Parts: sequence; structure tokens; C-alpha cells
Amino acid sequence: MILEIINKKRLGYELSYSELDYFFNGYLNGEIADYQMSSLLMAICINGMSDEEIFSLTKIFIDSGDTLDFSDILGIKVDKHSTGGIGDKTTLVIAPIVASLGVPVVKMSGRGLGYTGGTIDKLESITGFRVDLSDEEIIEQVKKINLVVTGQTADLVPMDKVIYALRDVTGTVSSIPLIASSVMSKKIASGADKILIDIKVGNGALLQKKEDAKKLSELMIKIGEVYHKEVRTVISDMNTPLGKTIGNSLEVLEAINVLKGREKDNSFVELCYDLATDMVSMGKEISKGAAHNLVLESIKSGSAYKKFLEMVGMQGGDIAKIKVSDNTFKIKSPVSGKIKKINALELGKLALALGAGKINKNDKIDYSVGIKLNKLLGDSVKKGEVLATIYYNKKEIEFDFDSIFKIN
Amino acid sequence: MILEIINKKRLGYELSYSELDYFFNGYLNGEIADYQMSSLLMAICINGMSDEEIFSLTKIFIDSGDTLDFSDILGIKVDKHSTGGIGDKTTLVIAPIVASLGVPVVKMSGRGLGYTGGTIDKLESITGFRVDLSDEEIIEQVKKINLVVTGQTADLVPMDKVIYALRDVTGTVSSIPLIASSVMSKKIASGADKILIDIKVGNGALLQKKEDAKKLSELMIKIGEVYHKEVRTVISDMNTPLGKTIGNSLEVLEAINVLKGREKDNSFVELCYDLATDMVSMGKEISKGAAHNLVLESIKSGSAYKKFLEMVGMQGGDIAKIKVSDNTFKIKSPVSGKIKKINALELGKLALALGAGKINKNDKIDYSVGIKLNKLLGDSVKKGEVLATIYYNKKEIEFDFDSIFKIN
Repeated sequence: MILEIINKKRLGYELSYSELDYFFNGYLNGEIADYQMSSLLMAICINGMSDEEIFSLTKIFIDSGDTLDFSDILGIKVDKHSTGGIGDKTTLVIAPIVASLGVPVVKMSGRGLGYTGGTIDKLESITGFRVDLSDEEIIEQVKKINLVVTGQTADLVPMDKVIYALRDVTGTVSSIPLIASSVMSKKIASGADKILIDIKVGNGALLQKKEDAKKLSELMIKIGEVYHKEVRTVISDMNTPLGKTIGNSLEVLEAINVLKGREKDNSFVELCYDLATDMVSMGKEISKGAAHNLVLESIKSGSAYKKFLEMVGMQGGDIAKIKVSDNTFKIKSPVSGKIKKINALELGKLALALGAGKINKNDKIDYSVGIKLNKLLGDSVKKGEVLATIYYNKKEIEFDFDSIFKIN
Repeated sequence: MILEIINKKRLGYELSYSELDYFFNGYLNGEIADYQMSSLLMAICINGMSDEEIFSLTKIFIDSGDTLDFSDILGIKVDKHSTGGIGDKTTLVIAPIVASLGVPVVKMSGRGLGYTGGTIDKLESITGFRVDLSDEEIIEQVKKINLVVTGQTADLVPMDKVIYALRDVTGTVSSIPLIASSVMSKKIASGADKILIDIKVGNGALLQKKEDAKKLSELMIKIGEVYHKEVRTVISDMNTPLGKTIGNSLEVLEAINVLKGREKDNSFVELCYDLATDMVSMGKEISKGAAHNLVLESIKSGSAYKKFLEMVGMQGGDIAKIKVSDNTFKIKSPVSGKIKKINALELGKLALALGAGKINKNDKIDYSVGIKLNKLLGDSVKKGEVLATIYYNKKEIEFDFDSIFKIN
């Protein structure tokens, strides 16, 4: 049976619900070996899956654990997910904006292995900030201030945990069907009414091609239809890092600047406004135009930043205590010209080397290190001007200018 | 590095010698996990390998262990390999024929998991027959009687052992590049001067399609060219079992009948003559026509059978002691008509169920059980005539007529 299923997928045939159920639950129960699961995962990666197979797999993932029910929280709960990228701190900005406009936001974020920490790691760079709220605390806080960003509480989608861990070490992460069922199962199990997905494309993302992002988008919307959940997607660039900073505390400080209205006219701020607009439009069931005006107003009036401070306060954080390393190294431009490229992937690797992310699960993140871009894509720069500042604690750092910047 | 290599093959790119070397030797040394190797093997299965990659892999396989040198045995040593099938006892017939004609035969055979035992298991159904000869015993015996059929002596191609074991449980056996490098590395490491490969195609074989068999044939010949070894291939049918018997002692008795000239005009006998002709033509460097005449003469004169008896004697076997079970169950035809199909795979499964083969390495083979076909493909049969005889020891047997025979 095990080999028949692997062989079927190897030859490109469709697997039935019961075959997928047998195999994936067999793996979760320890009856099927990891080398057999990785063999099937690679066959799925290369030969793909039909919509029916993806629906089956999503259901199997959801059914593997608990599901949350926040139905006694008033309002339409809109959840947002990003497929991940370098410098992605959008949640820190848009969750307070949306909550300040009356749409309840319960955002359960991950840590995840990666070049920099996940949203939860970033928030932990605020001294004292708690990310381990119980279900009761979550409900109490949402009822009070409309906003919670915390770690996962219940045993949501345990299948995803084991499968993701295996995909991570077997070269099978960038499979569109596997990404779709992984993300959607978690969003559905965590009780969202509507879901907004930010799909990243580029060298710093899981997906490299725009057509793959479109496929993933279509798939996620279809999965949403099966569960009667409205799903909207935004496809955004990840060849260039998001915003001006990479690294946990640096990113929190940048998010605060955006919430304070001090950052304007850069692609990161625009993406935040766009995503917040979609969430408000979904949550309040109003037009995007009307939602966009509300979003701008929430920044201008200071209510979005106030909401952020409320959340930090209720979750025990001290906003005055966000530590950034004192050791800085300024990279100056060797030439004058226009910045044609800032390589997201290479900056991600540098952030990881500085200690801003984890290679192994048990590594400790250094919240205070990272990179600040003093110039952004498209900016003009003069020879000798500072392009980027590296905040570091380690003794040995390598910096390869040409792999990161293209200027001419 | 590990993930880069897997991803490269997942996307269909060619791997370099050093990448393959790093990955396969890393696996052999325990530095690369089995779930990572199975992921790469599945990517190879689906995306294939270039000739260069296959040459690299074959070299890595050969270099993983010892190589044998029988250069002080006079004459051209011709080795023969079959990719395996149901009722395949050709080695038992052709090795004595070829040896009796003055071409030295040192055949190292395997046991192998499968529906019935390997050649070595079959020979062990002769009471006392030794298959664990040392290198010294092999050389002494070949010098004396020109013929040895024994198990593998040295630590030949340990890489193949671990990779084959993993392929066996991960749905990655039927990959042409992997089959080619596995078979050819063993033949080259065991010191053959020339190699004849019998490639089986059909439902009872690794390969199901004739075009795949042709691809494998071309590949093996190319690998031979790299090592300056003449390789000939024969592609033969494995939808129908080979010969009249399936099961260890039954197959030895059938081979003896062929060597005695008592079997004629069936496709198994013809295949044996053809393969022996090729080996003699390669070993003596004469035309196939001349070789064919010698083969027929060796049967007619009794010298082939005499050679077989010499081998059995020297390796400690008692030809009078070949035990066949007394419990027989005769299958009679429910209809009159012509036999249109005898399903090799289903007969293989039946033989396995009777105990003629092993499911797990530690299972014990029952040499005395098996199936004898009283009628062959194309024969006419009358209702009530015996089609097949089952030799059994187990109490419960299942026989599904329709899955095995088609008569009309």
C-alpha cells in the first residue's frame, strides 16, 4: 500500500482522499517512515497535485489537530498571512491599523526558521512582551482592545509541524500544492472568518516566479471557497527586502515609525497601507476606496500607533526597552549612481550570519543586530555616501558589496 | 549543500561528479539522512540523469568497495546478469554450457528479496551445496573445472547494498539510471572481461515497457565502453514466467532437464541457447552461428550436464537430494481452448505466498514448494486437463484462476 501510493504519484497519477489520509496520518502515527514520506513529498513537488488532491490534503491537515472558535468575539475576524520574506514586518504595522478601525484582529504568528525571526520573535525584542497568551487571555484582550498578536495556543495542525520540518530538510519546500495546504489549513483551523494572503515572489521568497505566485493565489482562493471563507491575495515583490531594516529590534522600530506617520513614499509603507485597506474592506464590508481613507486617517490621527502601544502594554512589553546594538559598521558607496538592485536573499543571509535568525531550532536569536538601508532601490547615491549600516555583536563579519548592491 | 543538490535535481539540472560524490558518500558515511537520500532518489526517478551523471554514479558505486581481479585465470571471463523475473533459472543452464565449451565462468550471484529465491537460493536447494567459497577456492575450482557459481566474496559495491535497500522501500526501484549504475558497477567491480545482460520486460519485471528496456540497454553498453568492457544485451519477455516451473528445487530440476536435452521447443530453452550462444561467441571471439552450433553440441553430447555435475560435486552438493514437496494440488482447466495468457506477476505472488521467496531479509525460504506449469502459453487445453501443479507445505493456500490464466 505504501509503495503503491508512492509509485502512483511518481508516475503522475491522482491520489484519492483515502490514499492521502492513509499516508499522511500513517506518517503522523509513526507507521510510515520519514524516508518514505520524503520520497512522496518529492514526487508531489515534481508531479504536482490536482485541486481535488489539494482539498483532500488541506482537510487531512485541519483534521489532524484542534480548531479554534472565536465566534463569541463580535465582528468579522480577518486574518492575514505572508508567505515570508526578508524584512517582512507588515503584521506589526497593519494589525494595529485594522484593530484601531474597529475590526477585531487575533493574529497567531510563528517563529519559524529563516533568515530573520518571525513576527513573534520580532515582538519579543520588546523587553517583557509576552507571546504565550492563553485562549482566555486572548479573548479577554480582544474584547478590551480589539487586538492580539501572539503565538499559537492550541494544538493547531500538528500535521503541518511534522511535514514542514521534513520538507525543510529534504528540498521539498517550494511546492505550490504543499504551501497552499500548509498555509490554508492553519488559517482555517485558527478560526478566521476571512483571510488575506500576501504572496511574496522573488529571490528572497519561497517562490521565484510570478506565474507560480498566481497559481498559489488561485489555489488558496479555491480552498477558501470549499470552506466558505473569503480569501483575498496580494502578490508582492521579494527581490528587494521589505522596508529599510532587516533584524528584529530594527524592524520593530521601523514599524513604529510607520505607525507614527514618519515613513512615507516607500514601497514598504505602500504595501502596509494596501494590505490594511484590504483587511478593513473585508472586515467592515466596505469599498476599498472607503477603507483606504480610513487607513490613512488612522495613521494621521495617531490612533493606529495608540493601538500598538495598548497591545504592547497589555502584553507586558516596555516600549522604551528595545535594544539595538551599539556596534555599527557603515557601508559607503564606492561609486556614484543610481541603485539598480538590492539583493534580498543576500541581505537575508547576512542577517542570519549576524545572528538575527536561526539556522537550527535551538539557536538563540540576537534581537539587537541587523541591517539598516540608508538608501533604497531607485535612490541616487554619491561616492562615499552611506548606503547601509550594519548593527553587529559578533567579532567576525563578512560583507560582499557586489552580491548585495548594483549601482550605475 | 545537501539541499542545493536536491533542489538542483528537483528542478531537472545536471549534477556534477563532485556533487554526486558528496551526496552518495555522505549517505554511506551516515552524514546525510535516509530521508534526504530518498528525496534525491525520487527526483532522479522522475527527472532522470544525463549520461555523464550515470557514468559518475557508476564510478562512485565501484569506488565504494573492493574490486576483484581474476586476471590469472586463463581465457576471457564473460559474466552474465539478468534484471530478474519469475522462474528465471537461466544461469543454472547456461553457466555449465559455456564452461563446458572452454570459456571460464565465475558467476557471483545474489539472493535478493523477490518472489522466488535468487540463483544462490536455488542452488542451495541441492542438499550440501556450498555458496560461500573463498577467493582462493574460486580460483582453484575455475582452474580445475572452468566453472563456479557462488555468492559474492569481497565487499563489492557496498554503496549498492545501502542504496538498493532504501530504493526497495521508497518506490524508487524502477529508475533506468539507477538500475544501470547498480548492475554495471557490480559487474565491473567483480572483474568480468565481457558482460552479457538479460533485460526482462513485462509485469513480472522491474521494467514494464520495451522502450525503457531499450534505453537501459543503450545505457549499459555506454557504461561498458567507458570501462573498455564489451557489453551485449538481450531484451526478453517477462509477462509470462520463464519455463515450466517457479520455486527453488523445481527450477533446479527443470534446469537439469534442459541440460540433459529433455526439454525442447519452449521459449525458456530457446532463451538459454541464445544467451549461451552470446557468451560463447564473446568468450571465444567467434561468430554467433559457430557458437550456436557448439552450444547445441554441448547439450547433445552431454558435456554441459557433465559440467553441471562436476560443479555440484566440487561445491559439496548431492544431486540425488533435491527435495520437492509431496503435497500437490492440481489445477484443472474449467474450459477448453487455447492458453492466451499466463500472468508472471500473479504466479510470482503465489510462489511467494507458498514460501518460495522472502518478504523480509530474515524469512526462511522453503526450497521444496512452488508451481509447475503443465501447459504453456499458446498450448491447447481441454476442459478437465491439468494446467498447473502446486507443490505446497502450508495449510492455507489461495488460488485465483482468473488472475493467472486466460483461456479461450
